This record gives sequence, structure tokens and C-alpha cells, in this order.
Amino acid sequence: MTDSPARTPGRRPGGPDTRGDILRAARESFAGKGFAGTSLRAVAREAGVDAALVHHYFESKDELFIESMALPVDPRQVAAVILGGPREELGRRIITTFLGVWESAEGQQRMKAVLRSVVTSDEVARMMREGITKMIMVPVAAVLDVPDARLRVSLVATQLLGLALTRYLVDLDPVATTPVPDLIDRIAPVIQHYLTA
Amino acid sequence: MTDSPARTPGRRPGGPDTRGDILRAARESFAGKGFAGTSLRAVAREAGVDAALVHHYFESKDELFIESMALPVDPRQVAAVILGGPREELGRRIITTFLGVWESAEGQQRMKAVLRSVVTSDEVARMMREGITKMIMVPVAAVLDVPDARLRVSLVATQLLGLALTRYLVDLDPVATTPVPDLIDRIAPVIQHYLTA
Repeated sequence: MTDSPARTPGRRPGGPDTRGDILRAARESFAGKGFAGTSLRAVAREAGVDAALVHHYFESKDELFIESMALPVDPRQVAAVILGGPREELGRRIITTFLGVWESAEGQQRMKAVLRSVVTSDEVARMMREGITKMIMVPVAAVLDVPDARLRVSLVATQLLGLALTRYLVDLDPVATTPVPDLIDRIAPVIQHYLTA
Repeated sequence: MTDSPARTPGRRPGGPDTRGDILRAARESFAGKGFAGTSLRAVAREAGVDAALVHHYFESKDELFIESMALPVDPRQVAAVILGGPREELGRRIITTFLGVWESAEGQQRMKAVLRSVVTSDEVARMMREGITKMIMVPVAAVLDVPDARLRVSLVATQLLGLALTRYLVDLDPVATTPVPDLIDRIAPVIQHYLTA
């Protein structure tokens, strides 16, 4: 499947923005049919390219999905950082990682755009919902190993999204100007409480 | 100032949508100049009506502000409910009141529109920030009577806005489908913690 796609006959070879064409088709499919309902083959067909070309640019459906969300970080790496440490410090690792992404200048611009799109587009909201669920919430819930793990993790999501909304978009003082270490000290215990109390 | 405005010469008398004209002018002024920078006299001038007419429709600048935000509830009533009970149940009263507004069908439609506008318009964000601060955060912070009261109250705002965003706009499960009493049980202790721990 990783042979040079130019050799495949009867399909358009990789043009200057083939990758962009694939991403556009993928975004449309993920938004309309969801993650499970999207196949690489159908994305290739929509983009007018051979399926091998999709594999050439994107290693897996996960990767295509992440790229099409245009996030500044790979949610699988985020999940790995969150899970790579003691359970009793989950809250601190989660809020530290989250603020790390938002506090970088480039990350903040991209995350703001993502958040604005989530709020104004049902399609983007659906993509983000599925992405967060599959790549972060499910792995974190798995290590909690309690029956209500998914609810606990989604309550954490409410706190994190609300912090981003209030600090970076609404600019509500004093939470918009509080130094990051202070915010971490205030919010880490709450996240820990949601997850393990 | 409350004389019949029709008697005032040289100004447009109350037309069919005078109230709407005043609200539009007020919204523009609150958004551009903020609450403190807005005077009823200037709003009247912008709307092309006599100042007495503004007083005829709106009792005070607070009321004009609340009406121009088009909220489904009066934030002063919300503050009164929140403050009308024992301090150790603040968390429960706050989340119960908040969900009460969002769970009514009409309230939810209007709050969704408000939240979408806050996220996409810097002007609406500014209005909402000033409105929340003045009418809810300042009174609640006053009863806490601790030096970091404003930060505590704004952390509560992050949790509440995030819950609204996640449950009603992003539709993230299971928090989108959890029954209200269960949500209250989970979130009330967190709000109480932010305020009084």
C-alpha cells in the first residue's frame, strides 16, 4: 500500500495540493459521517485520488483525523503524557499539559480557532466530540477502572473547556490574568477530585 | 424626567419601535464603550430620542444593560437567589440555579445564542464580561469576604461556562445526558471548594 502512488493507473497522481484535497475530503466525511462511518477508501474517492495516495500521506485513519482537526498538538501524545505518572497526580498533569498547549502563542491561536468553530458549527463540534472521546477520554477512563469513569472524565472536560473559554476568549478577570502556576494550584485538586474522589 | 416624552419639542416621539431603537443604540454603546462609559443621555442621542423616553422604557442603566444583553433571566435575581441561604450551601445553590436557567426550553435557546455570540464577538464578550462581573461576581465575592474572593468566583465561572459549553453546545457524552440531580451532586462540591476551601 505504500508503493509510489504515481504508478497506479487511471487515477489522478499526486498534484501540488493532493494532501490538502485529501484533508478537505476527510474533514467533510468525518463531520458528516463521523469517525466510524469514514473509510480511507471513501475519502480517496471523494478527493479523486487513489487510496494508496491517502496511505502515502497519512499513516492511519487516526492520523488523518488528527490532521483534519488541525490541532496544535497530537491528542495521542497528550494522552500519553497524562497517563505517564502516578494516579494521585493525574489532576496536576492534566491541567499542566492543557495550559502548556494554550499558553504557547501558536497553540493559543489555533486552539482559539478550534474552540470558535466548535461553538458555531455542529459539524466541527461532532468531530471534536468524537476526537476528544476516542483519543483522550477513553484512554484516561480506562486507567481509572471505575464504572462511572466516562462521566468523571467528561466532567474534567467541562472544567478544561470552561477555563479555556473564560481565560482566552471571554478574558474574564482575574482568571484571565492569573499566573499559570497559581491556576494549576487551584484547578489541579478539582480535576483530581472529579477523577478519583 | 418621567413626564410624557411626547411633549418634548424637537425630538422624535416614541415610534412603533422606539424601544428597539434604544436597545440597539445601547447595545452598541455598551459593546464599544463598556458599562461605565455608557450614559443614558448618549444612548438617547444615538437612538434619536429624548432622554426622558429612555427613562420611560428602562428604569435604570442596569436595566437597560440587562435588556440589551437579551438574557432569559435577570442576573440581579440570580444573585439574590444565590446569596439567599447558608454559606456552606453556596455551591449547591449556584449550580442548581444555573442549571435551572439552562434546562428550561426557552432559556436554553436564548443562552445558547448568548454563548455563541460571546465566543464569536469581542463586543458581546466584553458586555457579558462586564455584566457577569458587576451583577453576579462582585456581589458573590463580597459575601465571601476573603482577599482572593474575585479569583474564587471567576474559577466558578470557568466551571459553569464549561458545563454549558460541553453539555449544551458540544453535546459531549455522558455529561450531555446525565440527569440534572446527578450533575448537581457532582458539581456542587467543586463550586463550594472553589469558593470556601
